[in-house]
Amino acid sequence: MTETAPLVLLERDARGVYTLTLNDPKRFNALSGEMLDALQHALDEVAHDDEARAVVLAASGKAFCAGHNLKDMAANPDLAWYQQLFAQCSRVMLSLHKLSVPVIARVHGMATAAGCQLVAQCDLAVATYEASFATSGIHYGLFCATPSVPLVRNVPAKRAMEMLLTGDFIDAQTALAEGLVNRVVAPGRLDAEIDALVQSIVEKPRVAVAMGKALVYQQRELGLDAAYQLAGQAMATNMMDDAAQEGARAFAEKRQPAWKTPHGG
Amino acid sequence: MTETAPLVLLERDARGVYTLTLNDPKRFNALSGEMLDALQHALDEVAHDDEARAVVLAASGKAFCAGHNLKDMAANPDLAWYQQLFAQCSRVMLSLHKLSVPVIARVHGMATAAGCQLVAQCDLAVATYEASFATSGIHYGLFCATPSVPLVRNVPAKRAMEMLLTGDFIDAQTALAEGLVNRVVAPGRLDAEIDALVQSIVEKPRVAVAMGKALVYQQRELGLDAAYQLAGQAMATNMMDDAAQEGARAFAEKRQPAWKTPHGG
Amino acid sequence: MTETAPLVLLERDARGVYTLTLNDPKRFNALSGEMLDALQHALDEVAHDDEARAVVLAASGKAFCAGHNLKDMAANPDLAWYQQLFAQCSRVMLSLHKLSVPVIARVHGMATAAGCQLVAQCDLAVATYEASFATSGIHYGLFCATPSVPLVRNVPAKRAMEMLLTGDFIDAQTALAEGLVNRVVAPGRLDAEIDALVQSIVEKPRVAVAMGKALVYQQRELGLDAAYQLAGQAMATNMMDDAAQEGARAFAEKRQPAWKTPHGG
Repeated sequence: MTETAPLVLLERDARGVYTLTLNDPKRFNALSGEMLDALQHALDEVAHDDEARAVVLAASGKAFCAGHNLKDMAANPDLAWYQQLFAQCSRVMLSLHKLSVPVIARVHGMATAAGCQLVAQCDLAVATYEASFATSGIHYGLFCATPSVPLVRNVPAKRAMEMLLTGDFIDAQTALAEGLVNRVVAPGRLDAEIDALVQSIVEKPRVAVAMGKALVYQQRELGLDAAYQLAGQAMATNMMDDAAQEGARAFAEKRQPAWKTPHGG
Repeated sequence: MTETAPLVLLERDARGVYTLTLNDPKRFNALSGEMLDALQHALDEVAHDDEARAVVLAASGKAFCAGHNLKDMAANPDLAWYQQLFAQCSRVMLSLHKLSVPVIARVHGMATAAGCQLVAQCDLAVATYEASFATSGIHYGLFCATPSVPLVRNVPAKRAMEMLLTGDFIDAQTALAEGLVNRVVAPGRLDAEIDALVQSIVEKPRVAVAMGKALVYQQRELGLDAAYQLAGQAMATNMMDDAAQEGARAFAEKRQPAWKTPHGG
Repeated sequence: MTETAPLVLLERDARGVYTLTLNDPKRFNALSGEMLDALQHALDEVAHDDEARAVVLAASGKAFCAGHNLKDMAANPDLAWYQQLFAQCSRVMLSLHKLSVPVIARVHGMATAAGCQLVAQCDLAVATYEASFATSGIHYGLFCATPSVPLVRNVPAKRAMEMLLTGDFIDAQTALAEGLVNRVVAPGRLDAEIDALVQSIVEKPRVAVAMGKALVYQQRELGLDAAYQLAGQAMATNMMDDAAQEGARAFAEKRQPAWKTPHGG
């Protein structure tokens, strides 16, 4: 690893599947300002690719991500500096959320503080037995306030509060039981499991997936009547797409949909 | 099954317990416009019965419900037609929600797309080992937007998103673990388990159950202070009912409440 | 137990940890107006102690808490009286919520109706194998409306509805699986487990814990963007505290934080 290695490695395959790899293993992929810049840049690149289909968020080295760089934070005891840092970090998190393609966290090791937040903020997450999770800022006097935002939207209330107040680690099986990750697998099976999810997504029409991801998060914040109204409208619009029309015909004719592109477009 | 068999069978027992049975087994009880009409009609009938106590939502044949009729949808490529269909379907779902008596899904087989939505929208659900659940529309290019509305209000966020994006089935035990159903039993035990729940409900005063069901859903959409205010008012009003007065006296006198009617009214 | 024994025992240790013990074992610690007064008084005392660090909510005798005193309620068939009672009870519940220090329920026995609500409303809860939980008011014609407020914010929707409609007990393991408690232990281990949680909390800076508890509940009621904005601001402010500055320096220097007081202040 040379000094000029990029902080986020970006790969795109022929399907439009991006793998973004946090790549600062010596610092456990800490979310320094530079790392957040690099990640924002990568997410913006995906956002501008109309043929993107999915993002896998991975990491180099032993840990997944250790969260904010406390060393930098100790060196900059300034409110405006901190405000800027958390605003930048929240912008990255909201970019994961707003991206029109699903984002899957590939968690092979420790995910702490804003690293745990990354996992919680992704749409899906697959972890290995060796992964562990903590909102550990409180050990250093810094309550994981921004990580609590996606945490309480994924995990039951008292479990989230316990993680936030104690800062203690939970193992991957506990994270699975609590809803923080979708699957826990042996390390040797991690890429295969991720790819099974990715492949399932890329076989679906892009437009339906994009509409669906946005709709789920939007309607969740509404009352039930308003949620149904929004969802009904979204679904009617979705049904007018060529891909859905072909899908419905294929169903009626008991055959597989013959979508025009491998992207289902 | 003749052509003139009703699409929804309606039975009412002496307790005021309705069993509504989706009855189009050849089409896996698909929610065609006609089926939705029949179901709406049945729910309206329950809504107008002041002595109704509970609804069991059941289905004929091998499947519970396969969701919308994609064949009809393929034949009607028209935005207004789709909007009307989803509005009609959402009206049925909101009728389950707004009904003053609890609705229990009796899930003996496959529940897909809007069929899975029916299960999620019911207040309670009992399934057999043989039941399975999927929000499968995305396989045909149609994201299960309206099913996502009750799904995310029942199931942890990442689990819901996985079902919606992959369209894959989960089995009954997984549905139980995720909160989509209350109990999973052997097929031979299904009616007994359903009846145990029903019997427990009909032994309670109707007015308290009706107030309670409405209150739970209303307060859930409010902030904590407003929720407590609403709930406190509802409970004080409930306490003034004859049945609650008799219940409190019975408690004080260490005896069973002697409610005037078998409905606790 | 003499007639003059206080209804709520209050102990404070040198760490600032309060143990509040409901102390009306003959009435299963029922939440009479007097008991609610005593509990409110104790919570107010904690709220005014700037060096308080945590509250353990415990109970004397066989049961944890049997909820409202139905005998009193039967003797006062008056709407205004009930309104006042539920308002008083909700004020106690909201005091648990608004207290700047974490509150841990110590559940050694039966917790029913508003007793179950107390457990749900606490930030954390540890129960023994012998504990059991029910929202049992419906057995007496009184739907547990106010208990439903924290219940649906802790437990999956259909599980909460089943408890509320049937009034039936769930055991401690079920309560754990559903998110109502954090841990279930043998009776002989209860105080040790509680103290491990308490000790973990008192080792953290008071100001960060106070900010964090308030923030988690506030942001949970907001949309995602607003939640991130609030949380980012809270975290930047937290980072300016002496304790967090020392924590970050300690991290950078690979040593334990040397906080000025045992409270991390």
